[in-house]
Amino acid sequence: MPKIVVDVMPKAELLDPQGKAVAGALARLGNDTFSGVRVGKRFELTVDGPVDEAVLASVREIADELLSNSVIEDVVGITVVDGNGAHSAAASGALA
Amino acid sequence: MPKIVVDVMPKAELLDPQGKAVAGALARLGNDTFSGVRVGKRFELTVDGPVDEAVLASVREIADELLSNSVIEDVVGITVVDGNGAHSAAASGALA
Repeated sequence: MPKIVVDVMPKAELLDPQGKAVAGALARLGNDTFSGVRVGKRFELTVDGPVDEAVLASVREIADELLSNSVIEDVVGITVVDGNGAHSAAASGALA
Repeated sequence: MPKIVVDVMPKAELLDPQGKAVAGALARLGNDTFSGVRVGKRFELTVDGPVDEAVLASVREIADELLSNSVIEDVVGITVVDGNGAHSAAASGALA
């Protein structure tokens, strides 16, 4: 069954305490490859039946209203993944 | 600067209370398009400098040991995203 993946990240201009904690842990472990870490959420919605424009529109609405808090978060990607794990249609990138 | 995105999801055989809560909210709102919702985490690691095999190996190790709890979670994707948001190299799909 097709899945739609919605990616939500904290807004770039806001502090991200979870990300800071991971970055601090990496630094303590001696890893200095990464200059920053941010932690967001990934939602996988399993769709009954085919993914058409109506379903995508409904996902966009859900992503904006239910899955993300637009005051502090951005929806950064909505991607359709088929049952085999291959990415097909996509509305990825900064959507905000 | 290039970013590496690590996607972590709860294992398929485990209950996901956050996902169940979202699915319940969708049902209460009258939306029956989706048969299931699972909620995982998305980590964005910003890399200083180019992404080579050594960096990717280090990300794989970090993903397995620091970013995910292998008892309850799977690393489902490690994707390189360049500064412009375009996806380039990828090690996506079920990595577990």
